[in-house]
Amino acid sequence: MSAARVRGQVRIVGAGLLGASIGLALRERELDVILADTSRANLSLAIDYGAGRPAAEDDAPTLVIVAVPPDLVADVAAAELHANPDALVIDVASVKAGILHELAERGADTARYLGTHPMAGRERGGAISARADLFLGRPWVITPTEITTDEQYRTVEDLALELGATPVRMTAEEHDRGVALVSHVPQLVSSLLASRLRKAPDSAVRLAGQGLRDTTRIAGSDPELWVQILGANAAPVARVLHDYRDELDEVIAALEAPAASGSPRRIAETLAAGNQGVARIPGKHGRDERFSALVVKVDDTPGQLARLLTEIGEEGVNLEDFRLEHSPGAQVGFAEINVLPEAAHRLAEALQARGWTLAEGER
Amino acid sequence: MSAARVRGQVRIVGAGLLGASIGLALRERELDVILADTSRANLSLAIDYGAGRPAAEDDAPTLVIVAVPPDLVADVAAAELHANPDALVIDVASVKAGILHELAERGADTARYLGTHPMAGRERGGAISARADLFLGRPWVITPTEITTDEQYRTVEDLALELGATPVRMTAEEHDRGVALVSHVPQLVSSLLASRLRKAPDSAVRLAGQGLRDTTRIAGSDPELWVQILGANAAPVARVLHDYRDELDEVIAALEAPAASGSPRRIAETLAAGNQGVARIPGKHGRDERFSALVVKVDDTPGQLARLLTEIGEEGVNLEDFRLEHSPGAQVGFAEINVLPEAAHRLAEALQARGWTLAEGER
Repeated sequence: MSAARVRGQVRIVGAGLLGASIGLALRERELDVILADTSRANLSLAIDYGAGRPAAEDDAPTLVIVAVPPDLVADVAAAELHANPDALVIDVASVKAGILHELAERGADTARYLGTHPMAGRERGGAISARADLFLGRPWVITPTEITTDEQYRTVEDLALELGATPVRMTAEEHDRGVALVSHVPQLVSSLLASRLRKAPDSAVRLAGQGLRDTTRIAGSDPELWVQILGANAAPVARVLHDYRDELDEVIAALEAPAASGSPRRIAETLAAGNQGVARIPGKHGRDERFSALVVKVDDTPGQLARLLTEIGEEGVNLEDFRLEHSPGAQVGFAEINVLPEAAHRLAEALQARGWTLAEGER
Repeated sequence: MSAARVRGQVRIVGAGLLGASIGLALRERELDVILADTSRANLSLAIDYGAGRPAAEDDAPTLVIVAVPPDLVADVAAAELHANPDALVIDVASVKAGILHELAERGADTARYLGTHPMAGRERGGAISARADLFLGRPWVITPTEITTDEQYRTVEDLALELGATPVRMTAEEHDRGVALVSHVPQLVSSLLASRLRKAPDSAVRLAGQGLRDTTRIAGSDPELWVQILGANAAPVARVLHDYRDELDEVIAALEAPAASGSPRRIAETLAAGNQGVARIPGKHGRDERFSALVVKVDDTPGQLARLLTEIGEEGVNLEDFRLEHSPGAQVGFAEINVLPEAAHRLAEALQARGWTLAEGER
């Protein structure tokens, strides 16, 4: 692609999920991507996967992306700033203020460092899970300081845009408070809930339904990684948990005297506050925000569905995701078609012209 | 169906999601289903939907199913026991011990009452959301007492089996402790978490990802219903929340002194305990347990997918659910086909014979 916003050699240190995904995406744009990793096995895998090439003597990267585990970021970023005196060095770790502080303590050239955090991930890590589209439609936080130049900021903004992400400008402190609330506290709340199941009787656990599955899904996350993240953002996380604990105490008190005046109201207030809080989360729940969804009514027969897909193909529209909800008894199903937003309107009109009925809103 | 396990007239009181879904399923089996509801509008809707017929003078139900909101169950069950002196009266509410206690207090004929709880639901309630297959593959808890006869137990067991559910025998107290852990506490934990988002800055909320969405999804539940459920099961819920709060306090203390000896270990222990707890939850996370999934590799073109669906139709297998995961860059996609378990093996062999590649395990 000649219109690529990112130019020059890019060096990525750390060939895990994020590093390899960035590498894959930049290689698709035919950039020269240098990969480094302390693990030879990780590095070979990421190179085999097409995420970049090994380092060479005369490399001169203009941009270095540090994508190592949180505890190692400051050390590696300091070393990269030293080894590449003309490069802008950025990182992609999920806590920001502490790294800048550590770099300053080490006497690193922080004028060439810029902290960033792409809000993307998968349940499984490693280069094996890397995807070039990992960042599509996701926020990519960039945390400039007073000494960050416009050119430095634009370089990282261009990187985020090139990878399909949405750049979000924040201070490191704003970022850390934000992720404490929307990511780190949910992780602990989920782990604490799942922790209760360890010694539960089998008869209780077998009653588990989708509500428990959803609330505990992230309790399956890697403890080693999360101890690092939580340790690096301890104060903002503790502040949110304090408020959480105070409200929890009130709910426990109400449950211990359920017939007392005010107890039902106290419980109702927490449930209503939960309703209000969840309504603030942008995007449809459980949906992939990168795509637009069309919902088409189909008779509940395989032939109908095949015809629908054939006709979508004839319209030249590529399906990004597809889901059928089948409701026995009703004799109709609803096919949810996910396409790129720019194709959605045209496809909707074409399908209606071909006689299909489109349903409105969420199913 | 001549082999129907449930016989005689069935009277359902309460034409909401559960009542109307039971009605739909029993009507599919050509049983005589009588519907009652204090709301004329609810009743008409459920009858229009095909869930049963209005009550008549000479009705003589052998089974009465009370499917009203939790706070009303004891009153309605007592009235139904009185009005139908030969019928077995059951309820489907999500808390059990209190109802039996209240019925005894009212002097009702508890020898003809049996408490049950089908562990099924949808996010939206009402007859409009009813489905005949709501109970398929779900546990249906039955809580007999010392005076419950084998015949009474078998009647309810047959109802559950007829509707595709798995009967689970427990005492009312075991049930209430179990649902406190796997349903009621998760609800409060999720509401308390979402409650934190109410006053959060927009800049924080826009960083929300799938982890927050999953952990707060059930925080969108109906406060009115949940105040009743939590009030009816207050003591078991409070006991679980006490343990939760104690571990939360330890985590907060560790986060307030993150560099102190033992703090990282304390946090790691909660994360590891969460791993262990979540591993105990039966079934695949986020999957529909009623069906078997086959994963078929498809070239990432609409024509391929249409061919796959056509061929599944030619094999005479009905798709229950279907999902395409599309991974740009890889040039292949994976179609997850959900079919009834009894059809899965045959379809897998047929597709392989037709040249399709089936992937193993989870994607």
